[in-house]
Amino acid sequence: DFEHALEEVKPAFGTDDAELEDAMPDGIIEFSDGIQRILQDGLLYVEHVKTQSKRLTSVLLHGPQSSGKTALAAYIAMKSDFPFIKLITPASVVGFRDEVAKKDYIHKIFTDAYKSPLSLLIIDDIERMIEWVPVGPRLSNNILQALMTLFKTPPPKGHKLLILATTSQRYVMEQLDVVRAFNRQIAVPAVSDLRELEQVLTKFGDGPLSDPYQARQACQAIQQQTGTDSVMVGIKTILATAETAKLSSDPVEWFADQIAEQVPRRGSE
Amino acid sequence: DFEHALEEVKPAFGTDDAELEDAMPDGIIEFSDGIQRILQDGLLYVEHVKTQSKRLTSVLLHGPQSSGKTALAAYIAMKSDFPFIKLITPASVVGFRDEVAKKDYIHKIFTDAYKSPLSLLIIDDIERMIEWVPVGPRLSNNILQALMTLFKTPPPKGHKLLILATTSQRYVMEQLDVVRAFNRQIAVPAVSDLRELEQVLTKFGDGPLSDPYQARQACQAIQQQTGTDSVMVGIKTILATAETAKLSSDPVEWFADQIAEQVPRRGSE
Amino acid sequence: DFEHALEEVKPAFGTDDAELEDAMPDGIIEFSDGIQRILQDGLLYVEHVKTQSKRLTSVLLHGPQSSGKTALAAYIAMKSDFPFIKLITPASVVGFRDEVAKKDYIHKIFTDAYKSPLSLLIIDDIERMIEWVPVGPRLSNNILQALMTLFKTPPPKGHKLLILATTSQRYVMEQLDVVRAFNRQIAVPAVSDLRELEQVLTKFGDGPLSDPYQARQACQAIQQQTGTDSVMVGIKTILATAETAKLSSDPVEWFADQIAEQVPRRGSE
Amino acid sequence: DFEHALEEVKPAFGTDDAELEDAMPDGIIEFSDGIQRILQDGLLYVEHVKTQSKRLTSVLLHGPQSSGKTALAAYIAMKSDFPFIKLITPASVVGFRDEVAKKDYIHKIFTDAYKSPLSLLIIDDIERMIEWVPVGPRLSNNILQALMTLFKTPPPKGHKLLILATTSQRYVMEQLDVVRAFNRQIAVPAVSDLRELEQVLTKFGDGPLSDPYQARQACQAIQQQTGTDSVMVGIKTILATAETAKLSSDPVEWFADQIAEQVPRRGSE
Amino acid sequence: DFEHALEEVKPAFGTDDAELEDAMPDGIIEFSDGIQRILQDGLLYVEHVKTQSKRLTSVLLHGPQSSGKTALAAYIAMKSDFPFIKLITPASVVGFRDEVAKKDYIHKIFTDAYKSPLSLLIIDDIERMIEWVPVGPRLSNNILQALMTLFKTPPPKGHKLLILATTSQRYVMEQLDVVRAFNRQIAVPAVSDLRELEQVLTKFGDGPLSDPYQARQACQAIQQQTGTDSVMVGIKTILATAETAKLSSDPVEWFADQIAEQVPRRGSE
Amino acid sequence: DFEHALEEVKPAFGTDDAELEDAMPDGIIEFSDGIQRILQDGLLYVEHVKTQSKRLTSVLLHGPQSSGKTALAAYIAMKSDFPFIKLITPASVVGFRDEVAKKDYIHKIFTDAYKSPLSLLIIDDIERMIEWVPVGPRLSNNILQALMTLFKTPPPKGHKLLILATTSQRYVMEQLDVVRAFNRQIAVPAVSDLRELEQVLTKFGDGPLSDPYQARQACQAIQQQTGTDSVMVGIKTILATAETAKLSSDPVEWFADQIAEQVPRRGSE
Ligand SMILES: Nc1ncnc2c1ncn2[C@@H]1O[C@H](COP(=O)(O)OP(=O)(O)OP(=O)(O)O)[C@@H](O)[C@H]1O
Ligand SMILES: Nc1ncnc2c1ncn2[C@@H]1O[C@H](COP(=O)(O)OP(=O)(O)OP(=O)(O)O)[C@@H](O)[C@H]1O
Ligand SMILES: Nc1ncnc2c1ncn2[C@@H]1O[C@H](COP(=O)(O)OP(=O)(O)OP(=O)(O)O)[C@@H](O)[C@H]1O
Ligand SMILES: Nc1ncnc2c1ncn2[C@@H]1O[C@H](COP(=O)(O)OP(=O)(O)OP(=O)(O)O)[C@@H](O)[C@H]1O
Ligand SMILES: Nc1ncnc2c1ncn2[C@@H]1O[C@H](COP(=O)(O)OP(=O)(O)OP(=O)(O)O)[C@@H](O)[C@H]1O
Ligand SMILES: Nc1ncnc2c1ncn2[C@@H]1O[C@H](COP(=O)(O)OP(=O)(O)OP(=O)(O)O)[C@@H](O)[C@H]1O
Ligand SMILES: [Mg+2]
Ligand SMILES: [Mg+2]
Ligand SMILES: [Mg+2]
Ligand SMILES: [Mg+2]
Ligand SMILES: [Mg+2]
Ligand SMILES: [Mg+2]
Repeated sequence: DFEHALEEVKPAFGTDDAELEDAMPDGIIEFSDGIQRILQDGLLYVEHVKTQSKRLTSVLLHGPQSSGKTALAAYIAMKSDFPFIKLITPASVVGFRDEVAKKDYIHKIFTDAYKSPLSLLIIDDIERMIEWVPVGPRLSNNILQALMTLFKTPPPKGHKLLILATTSQRYVMEQLDVVRAFNRQIAVPAVSDLRELEQVLTKFGDGPLSDPYQARQACQAIQQQTGTDSVMVGIKTILATAETAKLSSDPVEWFADQIAEQVPRRGSE
Repeated sequence: DFEHALEEVKPAFGTDDAELEDAMPDGIIEFSDGIQRILQDGLLYVEHVKTQSKRLTSVLLHGPQSSGKTALAAYIAMKSDFPFIKLITPASVVGFRDEVAKKDYIHKIFTDAYKSPLSLLIIDDIERMIEWVPVGPRLSNNILQALMTLFKTPPPKGHKLLILATTSQRYVMEQLDVVRAFNRQIAVPAVSDLRELEQVLTKFGDGPLSDPYQARQACQAIQQQTGTDSVMVGIKTILATAETAKLSSDPVEWFADQIAEQVPRRGSE
Repeated sequence: DFEHALEEVKPAFGTDDAELEDAMPDGIIEFSDGIQRILQDGLLYVEHVKTQSKRLTSVLLHGPQSSGKTALAAYIAMKSDFPFIKLITPASVVGFRDEVAKKDYIHKIFTDAYKSPLSLLIIDDIERMIEWVPVGPRLSNNILQALMTLFKTPPPKGHKLLILATTSQRYVMEQLDVVRAFNRQIAVPAVSDLRELEQVLTKFGDGPLSDPYQARQACQAIQQQTGTDSVMVGIKTILATAETAKLSSDPVEWFADQIAEQVPRRGSE
Repeated sequence: DFEHALEEVKPAFGTDDAELEDAMPDGIIEFSDGIQRILQDGLLYVEHVKTQSKRLTSVLLHGPQSSGKTALAAYIAMKSDFPFIKLITPASVVGFRDEVAKKDYIHKIFTDAYKSPLSLLIIDDIERMIEWVPVGPRLSNNILQALMTLFKTPPPKGHKLLILATTSQRYVMEQLDVVRAFNRQIAVPAVSDLRELEQVLTKFGDGPLSDPYQARQACQAIQQQTGTDSVMVGIKTILATAETAKLSSDPVEWFADQIAEQVPRRGSE
Repeated sequence: DFEHALEEVKPAFGTDDAELEDAMPDGIIEFSDGIQRILQDGLLYVEHVKTQSKRLTSVLLHGPQSSGKTALAAYIAMKSDFPFIKLITPASVVGFRDEVAKKDYIHKIFTDAYKSPLSLLIIDDIERMIEWVPVGPRLSNNILQALMTLFKTPPPKGHKLLILATTSQRYVMEQLDVVRAFNRQIAVPAVSDLRELEQVLTKFGDGPLSDPYQARQACQAIQQQTGTDSVMVGIKTILATAETAKLSSDPVEWFADQIAEQVPRRGSE
Repeated sequence: DFEHALEEVKPAFGTDDAELEDAMPDGIIEFSDGIQRILQDGLLYVEHVKTQSKRLTSVLLHGPQSSGKTALAAYIAMKSDFPFIKLITPASVVGFRDEVAKKDYIHKIFTDAYKSPLSLLIIDDIERMIEWVPVGPRLSNNILQALMTLFKTPPPKGHKLLILATTSQRYVMEQLDVVRAFNRQIAVPAVSDLRELEQVLTKFGDGPLSDPYQARQACQAIQQQTGTDSVMVGIKTILATAETAKLSSDPVEWFADQIAEQVPRRGSE
């Protein structure tokens, strides 16, 4: 079934559908087997929640910034066809007065979910939800405690809940003991090498870089500048750079320069 | 009496019965003598509270994550037949506004308990109750102080109270001087070796892994991957993995892979 | 007079009498000369307050956990025959909303005491009153400041006040500069050796262990397990263990095992 | 197009125009190619926002104190001709009661911007907005979290937003993880050497120092005092000093003295 | 004039007179020339305030615990004959809700004082006023800031104010920069040697120890126990101990034992 | 013009005049060329504000305690003849409830100033305004942030503002990044040597020490006690000591003793 999953994206039920699509503005490009495995795993958990007796399954999607965590969680949610799907993002709570108001809102959504027989909640960007700041360090313990409890609390009998949470601060989450609250984890890697990058470019949109020859050229230019096949740049960054490049007079060169700058140097941090 | 205790589980009186069963969704599997000893000790304390003149007995169940602390406390509570039983969990206080509201709620339940001639309270997951977070470190001193006082305060004359509290952060509780507030302690270990694991599998449910041959196969596969007989994984994790494995095409292999990954490596942390 | 003090315990005037008795549920056992000296000292201070012109005397009873501090303070208070006696315990303030409410309550009791010509106040467990927690470290400065001032403020002319405070955290109290607020100190030691332990057992209650032969057996069993005559366990722990032992099939062995476990090992912490 | 950009400064639409001009009281002097490149980049991003499908572009202008960050951001905003332009400065929030009121105001402006098809927001001096103080260190996590979320949240469909933010504390912003919230960065350097300084002087205003000969004299005097061609002083400081110098009896000498004092010594911090 | 000052103690005007006497319950004993010098200095400042044009004089009396700081300040105040005298002690603010209420009360008294042509304020025990606690360390910055400002703010034209403040934490006050707010300082030492102690005893009250022979005996006993002539114990402690000794069967021995215990050992902290 | 500035002190316009005089109760004594240079600089900035187009000038007067910072700022303000002059001191905000009320008051005065075409504001003792305390360290970030913004925000078009701020904690202000908010700095040194001290004495008032011979005697006595010509004591301290000395029987000796005590020892902190 996973083989054809990508073709048959059907919108989830209700008002949240647009919101989910909004979280994956450029769709899902299958630039590596890893992506397919992530989707397979995600949809397997969806299936389990439907068929198993266990009332709660919680999955942590973690990976570097811009690697596509939010989009993948949204994709899995869309594919789930669950009657209740809700996406809780930092943007959806930014307008609240303080941490208590934020916590109440989050708790309210969980309570709503508990009323549906089958629910899926995405908690996007946990570090932002708990107001994490590395200096201090500081965070909202109020929200953190609520989330850690909600991540482990099953809905009442006759109800099932799947939680998908994302973070680009896995190490912090481990220090805070948040990781142990999850049943399962999915690693979402950045685009790792030039082969994958080429895949991304040729499969993305209609700009000049999607031409196989230009894509190859761009990759070679990056190889020359960095002296390595390794890329390790998030897909979100790559797609945004590719789109901006369209407006440049020399898209290939401009794109290659920008990406090469982002490739982590060996021996650095 | 302890020998036959497991057969004759009778529900506790009142509205909390379902709640207690909910805290041990997979029942209690006797996978080792240790489990029986824990139940014996727990029920002995129940007996003492009934027959002794001492008005307060407080017991701390401590052990690694997922080792079954909550389920065992709930089991002992169910077996107690006390007229007043109440389970205070992080989930039951997550909706409160702030630490003061949480503290008031907890205090209210203790006050209610003091009105019954014979009461049993479970305070589940003390570290979550006091909003502990290792970074900082942070906690709710308001709730901590209330709990430390309530753990040591006997009910009025003519009333008896048994407190069962659980924690997977015994070391933290010692640093906070919480441990000394308890009369008794019960250690709840993880499933320690393959022999115990095999017991768990064969005694649990009706899936493929409960077949003795498959269970043996799974254990051997784990042995091969880890190179040791030691397991040290909590029963909750084992049961959840076993249930998910049912949906896999090769349950034995999938189960063995997952558990092997969780077995603590020698020399690591 | 001190020689016969123990025989003639008369209840203090008013509603607090039951409360005082409640604070020494097992009475006062004279298991060593030290106990008599503590009571002599305490009653001497009572006498001084009555006859001296000094309006305020404050005494700090300090000693390890469970050594009997609260019971001894309650005993001295009962013997004082003062018209106004009040016991302020952590349990009596646990229901208050926050530190300000607690502080107001404490201040109110002192103000009430100032109205009586002769008053005695017990402030039990100062570390809990000030909400001390070693991690942080944290405390309620609001309550601490009030207590430090109240411990040093004499009542108005024509009034006398005796303050008995207890703590098992003398070192912390010294760091917080609380100790200097007291006029006098009384050290309350744990049961120090097997000879004292034997005294405790034979003088306590009617269980099997109060039989001289059994008591001697228990002490010998402890000696064998620990390899020392030293005990250093609080009387509260010893009495609670002795009471629970009654229900055991082999009280002597069970009691010896439990106590031996509590005896501090040489060289440890 | 960039070549002629500086000539055709047209005011932005609406009430914010005066405010923008106020943020660049001495206009923009092209004292180096770097300045032109900054403006080119800025206007390129303006163009992209107009033509691209991406709904959000966020740019961080960073550089030393007084280097002209605010003026350059204001200039780019004026040139954008966007229908909605708003400048959020520390001065615009200084009157608010507390961090919550400030955060609400900032959030309100973003919400307003989301209603326009094409908006540009300048968030000036992020370190001041988040109430950063190096000692402690302290900051308003409330405002920080809101900004970090708002910097990454695109407006609704059919709307476009360009964010220009300025900071002279890039290192702090990196530690706080703020930098990663931006799509693009523009470095705004100080006036780096005497050649650039001469350009600034001759192109600025009508005072004595704008006379080429006097400007050259001033630069030589500085060279003699500092023993280097390097300057590294912000343009704002240079222009303010030049204006004050007009009132001096010997403008060249006074100006040279003042600037020489500001030139960072080699080997010093 | 200073020679006869001690004989002619006249009460200060108004309601505060009793309060001042209450602050020196055992009067002032001239046990050394130092005491006379302190009183001379204090009364000199009183004189200066009356005759000088300077509107504000602030004096810090500092010394070890129990050395008589409060009594000496009260004595100087009584002798001043100022129309407005007020004693602000920790006890006078202990009933206030929080630091803001305390600060308002203190400020109110200063404002009242500003209305009198000649005022004297005693701020007793600054460390307690600012709610200092060494662990943390913690304090009320609200009160500290108000005091530091009030200690330096002269009353309006035509008004004079003398401030006497006491502290036994001079080192802390220096760290907090409080000391610099004072114009003058007076050191109040403890009773330093056996000669002074003998003076104290013979000049104090009518108990057995005031008999010259007994006093001498007591001093010799102390000398024997401590092996030194040095005493370094506060007069308050000495007088309290002497009063309690009256009730003992052997006052001299009991007194000597108690004091010897308080004499600081050489080489110890 | 600066040469005759000191003779022609004319009061500033409006209600603040008395307040300014109050801030320099002993006038300004020209005890060194440095004082004249400070006044020249200050009045030059006044002139610039009047004639320049720049709308905001901010000057930081920094120097050791008691060196005359407040008096010099007040003097410059009086000489400015600006229509709006306001002195914001710690004493003027001490009565406010909390930091928010203080901040609102300060902000209100700036807003008032913005309404006048030509304004001068003195912010006296910034460290006290921001409630700085070195232990912790602690401060009011609310007030600090407001001040840092207000120090850099020019008034609206057609308005001019001169800010004079004082501090004796320049190092702290640098750590807090406050210093960079100022356009100009003026160092206000203490009285540095005996020659300057002699000037101060002979030019001050009508007491015995203003007699040239006595002044010389005093200086020689200090020289003998300290073994150095260096003084480094603030003028405020010197004048207060000289005034108190008038009442002494031997003013010269008493004065010399007191000052000698204040002279910083070589090698000490
Ligand atoms: N295989 C893919 N996986 C994920 N995203 C993809 C993939 N292919 C294309 N995309 C697009 O890449 C972008 C991924 O951005 P997304 O916001 O999900 O990243 P992120 O990891 O959540 O970033 P952040 O760390 O900022 O939260 C989306 O626009 C998405 O449509
Ligand atoms: N012998 C057993 N002891 C405890 N639990 C058992 C046992 N046999 C089966 N179980 C099942 O194992 C699970 C134990 O989960 P439980 O929540 O009690 O673990 P826990 O230690 O409290 O976990 P956590 O550390 O997350 O609080 C329950 O589903 C329970 O029904
Ligand atoms: N000699 C004794 N001294 C004190 N308590 C005694 C003595 N003999 C018997 N007891 C009993 O021992 C118990 C002492 O407990 P108590 O609560 O006073 O100890 P504690 O030191 O205050 O403990 P904690 O450290 O927990 O505050 C009481 O039940 C008391 O009746
Ligand atoms: N090329 C230029 N770039 C920037 N500013 C210029 C330039 N030429 C002249 N200016 C003038 O220089 C001043 C720059 O001041 P601006 O407030 O922008 O500096 P800033 O870097 O934001 O300072 P701060 O670090 O204090 O925020 C303005 O008066 C502006 O008109
Ligand atoms: N020469 C003296 N100086 C001060 N107090 C004296 C003197 N002679 C007798 N006394 C008596 O000694 C006591 C001094 O106590 P006081 O409260 O003033 O000490 P203190 O230093 O303020 O103590 P604390 O450090 O607790 O504040 C008073 O009872 C006072 O009457
Ligand atoms: N040349 C002078 N400069 C400054 N003050 C002088 C001078 N000559 C005399 N004075 C007098 O000296 C005193 C200076 O006190 P001022 O309060 O200004 O000092 P300060 O440095 O502000 O002290 P602080 O550090 O406490 O704020 C005033 O009384 C002033 O009238
Ligand atoms: Mg994301
Ligand atoms: Mg549990
Ligand atoms: Mg106790
Ligand atoms: Mg700027
Ligand atoms: Mg005192
Ligand atoms: Mg000043």
